[in-house]
Amino acid sequence: MENTCDTRQRILDSARDLIYANSYAEVGVAAICDHAGVKKGSFYHFFPSKQELVLAMLDAFYLDMKERLGDKAFIDELPPLARLERFTQLAYEFQLQLHQTTGMVLGCPFGNLANEVSTHDEVIRARLEQIFKKFHTLIRNTLEEANDSGTLNHINADATAQAMLAYFEGVMLMAKNQNNTDVIKQLLPAMSSIRIHNN
Amino acid sequence: MENTCDTRQRILDSARDLIYANSYAEVGVAAICDHAGVKKGSFYHFFPSKQELVLAMLDAFYLDMKERLGDKAFIDELPPLARLERFTQLAYEFQLQLHQTTGMVLGCPFGNLANEVSTHDEVIRARLEQIFKKFHTLIRNTLEEANDSGTLNHINADATAQAMLAYFEGVMLMAKNQNNTDVIKQLLPAMSSIRIHNN
Repeated sequence: MENTCDTRQRILDSARDLIYANSYAEVGVAAICDHAGVKKGSFYHFFPSKQELVLAMLDAFYLDMKERLGDKAFIDELPPLARLERFTQLAYEFQLQLHQTTGMVLGCPFGNLANEVSTHDEVIRARLEQIFKKFHTLIRNTLEEANDSGTLNHINADATAQAMLAYFEGVMLMAKNQNNTDVIKQLLPAMSSIRIHNN
Repeated sequence: MENTCDTRQRILDSARDLIYANSYAEVGVAAICDHAGVKKGSFYHFFPSKQELVLAMLDAFYLDMKERLGDKAFIDELPPLARLERFTQLAYEFQLQLHQTTGMVLGCPFGNLANEVSTHDEVIRARLEQIFKKFHTLIRNTLEEANDSGTLNHINADATAQAMLAYFEGVMLMAKNQNNTDVIKQLLPAMSSIRIHNN
């Protein structure tokens, strides 16, 4: 007998696989159901709309990225700036692994959708902004620790964290556009050297 | 009598207005024809497909961006690094002006589509890569001039130009996601301070 929990998870996993490798608009509910091996009625039992599914998919993706990257990089055992370096290294390894599996650089799942939908889907836009804020907070707290310990020379931690996140997103975009993981390998380490000073 | 040249231009302008403010997938041929006030037959007389239209739209967009930003910033009269500063300032002013007109931060027209279609439309992906390469060359040449004149301390001009372009794209993405031009104002000037050194 089909397990309810499994069915919901299969739909989420299928949405993630298909949307990450394509786009939000390109992937319809029918394709997600086909991929997950579930009927449309079953889909709408779990998710009232594709938008609701995508919100749940983004939340699950955030937890996965937090576990794979955030929780392994932003740890007290590492000096603050080494955490940022580990974060960029883990992000590179994750993209490398995806490239080996799919043949494509898929980039950042949040940045992809941010560029695709921010002007015309307020609900998804706002959820993506929340997710970016969580990564921003991880980076900002790290920079504040480095500021306090004298490792950094009184930078604007809030703006610098935004700038680092922006750079991260831009590198993922260029690597995706060139379908080349070397772009990430060469460019991403410079993320940790970006500084914005207080005026 | 309707002017042939005008009709083609109206279709291009409509595609630009609609796709820039939405996304590639969200805007169909029917919507473009409605907006341009032309019949579908007329559309297909000028463009065999939506993909062909988008390629022509991207080329026209590139020429417009080159004129508004590139040709005004990358000029011999300015010292190399001041050109980069002017480029970021002009890009900010352009987004500010669009925001005043549309109420939205539209971001980079090339970055938007790069994130949306790079994994599933090889023709558009390749055209976007060509366009990015042209901006990359403008920045790289400027950095090489600064390297040669001793303004910069032997950076890797090629990689630094890529990094600057990536940062530009990331800042546009974050500003679009937050629908806030202040993100560009605060973050974009740091573009010209990014450095990647030779190993």
